[in-house]
Amino acid sequence: MFPVADALAPAATALFTVVLTEGPLSRVGLARRLDLSSAAVTKGARPLIEMGYLEELAATERSGPGAGRPASPLTIRADREFFVGVKITRDELIGVVCDLRAQVRTAVHRRLSETDVDHVLRQIAEITTELLDGSGDYRSRTRRLGLAISGDVDLATGRVRYSPFLQWHDVPLRELAEQATGLTVTVENDVKALTTAEHWFGEGVGADSFALVTVGAGIGCGLVVGGRLVSGSFGVAGEIGHISVDVKGIACHCGSRGCVEAIAGADAIVRQAREATDRPELTFDDAVALARAGDPGVSAVFARAGDAIGSGIAAVANLVGPSRIVVSGEGLSAYDLFEPHIRAGFQRQAFGAAADCPLSIRPLPFEEWARGAATVSIKALVASWRRPV
Amino acid sequence: MFPVADALAPAATALFTVVLTEGPLSRVGLARRLDLSSAAVTKGARPLIEMGYLEELAATERSGPGAGRPASPLTIRADREFFVGVKITRDELIGVVCDLRAQVRTAVHRRLSETDVDHVLRQIAEITTELLDGSGDYRSRTRRLGLAISGDVDLATGRVRYSPFLQWHDVPLRELAEQATGLTVTVENDVKALTTAEHWFGEGVGADSFALVTVGAGIGCGLVVGGRLVSGSFGVAGEIGHISVDVKGIACHCGSRGCVEAIAGADAIVRQAREATDRPELTFDDAVALARAGDPGVSAVFARAGDAIGSGIAAVANLVGPSRIVVSGEGLSAYDLFEPHIRAGFQRQAFGAAADCPLSIRPLPFEEWARGAATVSIKALVASWRRPV
Ligand SMILES: [Zn+2]
Ligand SMILES: [Zn+2]
Repeated sequence: MFPVADALAPAATALFTVVLTEGPLSRVGLARRLDLSSAAVTKGARPLIEMGYLEELAATERSGPGAGRPASPLTIRADREFFVGVKITRDELIGVVCDLRAQVRTAVHRRLSETDVDHVLRQIAEITTELLDGSGDYRSRTRRLGLAISGDVDLATGRVRYSPFLQWHDVPLRELAEQATGLTVTVENDVKALTTAEHWFGEGVGADSFALVTVGAGIGCGLVVGGRLVSGSFGVAGEIGHISVDVKGIACHCGSRGCVEAIAGADAIVRQAREATDRPELTFDDAVALARAGDPGVSAVFARAGDAIGSGIAAVANLVGPSRIVVSGEGLSAYDLFEPHIRAGFQRQAFGAAADCPLSIRPLPFEEWARGAATVSIKALVASWRRPV
Repeated sequence: MFPVADALAPAATALFTVVLTEGPLSRVGLARRLDLSSAAVTKGARPLIEMGYLEELAATERSGPGAGRPASPLTIRADREFFVGVKITRDELIGVVCDLRAQVRTAVHRRLSETDVDHVLRQIAEITTELLDGSGDYRSRTRRLGLAISGDVDLATGRVRYSPFLQWHDVPLRELAEQATGLTVTVENDVKALTTAEHWFGEGVGADSFALVTVGAGIGCGLVVGGRLVSGSFGVAGEIGHISVDVKGIACHCGSRGCVEAIAGADAIVRQAREATDRPELTFDDAVALARAGDPGVSAVFARAGDAIGSGIAAVANLVGPSRIVVSGEGLSAYDLFEPHIRAGFQRQAFGAAADCPLSIRPLPFEEWARGAATVSIKALVASWRRPV
């Protein structure tokens, strides 16, 4: 193992983050990019090279005629450290091992037969062992585990204040998972974790503002404004699901009517498809099949849902003006049914130039949520280097 | 006159902004507040004292037993410089002179008989002369004029790209107003100007995130997130007026249906009140009088409007989570008719803890818009001190 510094200068973590998220850069390029002196860059990079997190690529260019020293770009040593990420859902755990660049090295699923805290913790410990002690030999270079869970999560303390799907109230998940696994644990809301992954390693790289909308059991949204994840003064942010688009519409579990989630959440779609067909046993997959076969009633359910999502996304664009919006999630396995209606609702409701905001609408690979969890632990590693003020 | 520096260190503008917006602070307090060394604070403050923008209050405390030097708090010299602010509306100009702390020293109104650019510029020049050369003798200490106008404004270039009320397209207002007045001019969207005033000198002081919602001819919103005014990647932000709350509702001029502005804008209220009473000549003031007298149809119009505004405000709280929301504007002269319905719509639609966000609902004094314009020119002064990188 390499030595690990207790604390680094702000310049060091800044330059590491830039190289991590934007790719190899020369010291001169870094100095320009970060508005630092060359000396500050050299000084900041040194401990990261010593610890093995950064390395110099072979020199590719000289900085000018007569310049003595070739410019060797700095790059990430992606296999310097690995990170476990686990997404906890109502009925399964999804686990991955990622490298420092959040590339997935291995992934596993595990059914959850129960959702009580003890059972879930045992399963987290087992899936972690399976991931780290399997074929890849990741154990020796893994110290951190990220957990992602839907609901109200306090990142700072690692407590799950409330998770509706698991029916958890005020669970000190970080502490319990550290005892169960021996790893340093970070806990984050799943949509925020996914947004962080997209901001650091996906379509949001380099964006000053950026939004990720998730479509599935719930309709969620993560927002980056001014380069920072928005968390809300009262712990609520990105709650696109409970924007009402129809004041006289379907009753929502939140107590209001016509919320985006009450029209376009997976349960809401199943309920409306059952009503449209008079078939009370219909599943989500049945509804998708019927709509694809051209059933007009069920097709209208997906059309209304897509339109409501598009209208909610337009509210995000009208209020915050992100430079890009990614729409993804399990629900987008039915991507073909939603997409045109999401775009139509968005175009109708986006105001003026807000309609120019590019929408990426795409399905979500199953391990993506767990990768988000791993990304949050990568971010926690970088934050741990920061010198306390 | 005092000397004026070309450029100051970032520490200087940061400490000036803190003293300006938060009040007198000792050098020790400033060092703590800004995470700077005492030496950096002393060095940063020196040119500002020399230029006469800051001064030391009489020493009020000693920093400790045996400490030789008394701690003299630094404070703003509010009358060091004055700023003209003018709000341009469809039918009048409102002008003020403010001091450095954005306190209004004098205010005037001027009817606008026409809205063509030349006429408005002549009126701006005349109102500026009236303000500066009147009884107050402000001329010798005034170098800057801020203009606020509704519509799509580019602060960086001072161009009005589009103003629907004035029917202006791509007017280089800064350049023209500088020629007409001889002052250094800043042009900003009126809602953003008002938000800046509230953020620097009102209820938003010190808030990391903050929203101002304006109710009048249009329904607007200014947002501060992460301490910065949100301007939107495509120039659109805070467009609460075109969030749709009723997908099958009243047609809006934007092409959609059920927008907050189509239900709650002043024109929309007049139109609905005329329909409710079958009196096609009814004015806004007539509608207010009828609702106050208990007319059920017209009361219902204000109730629906307040509810739509509350629902739109809840979308802001759900998505961004500001620490406080101020609701104001000309429309709130009918404050008593709106307020309970704004609060009810907000409470119903705010999700979970987002409902804890405090709402300040209050009328807007007529000179407040012009004060916002002056504040933008105060901000431009501070920005002008920043050393170019
Ligand atoms: Zn709801
Ligand atoms: Zn509209």
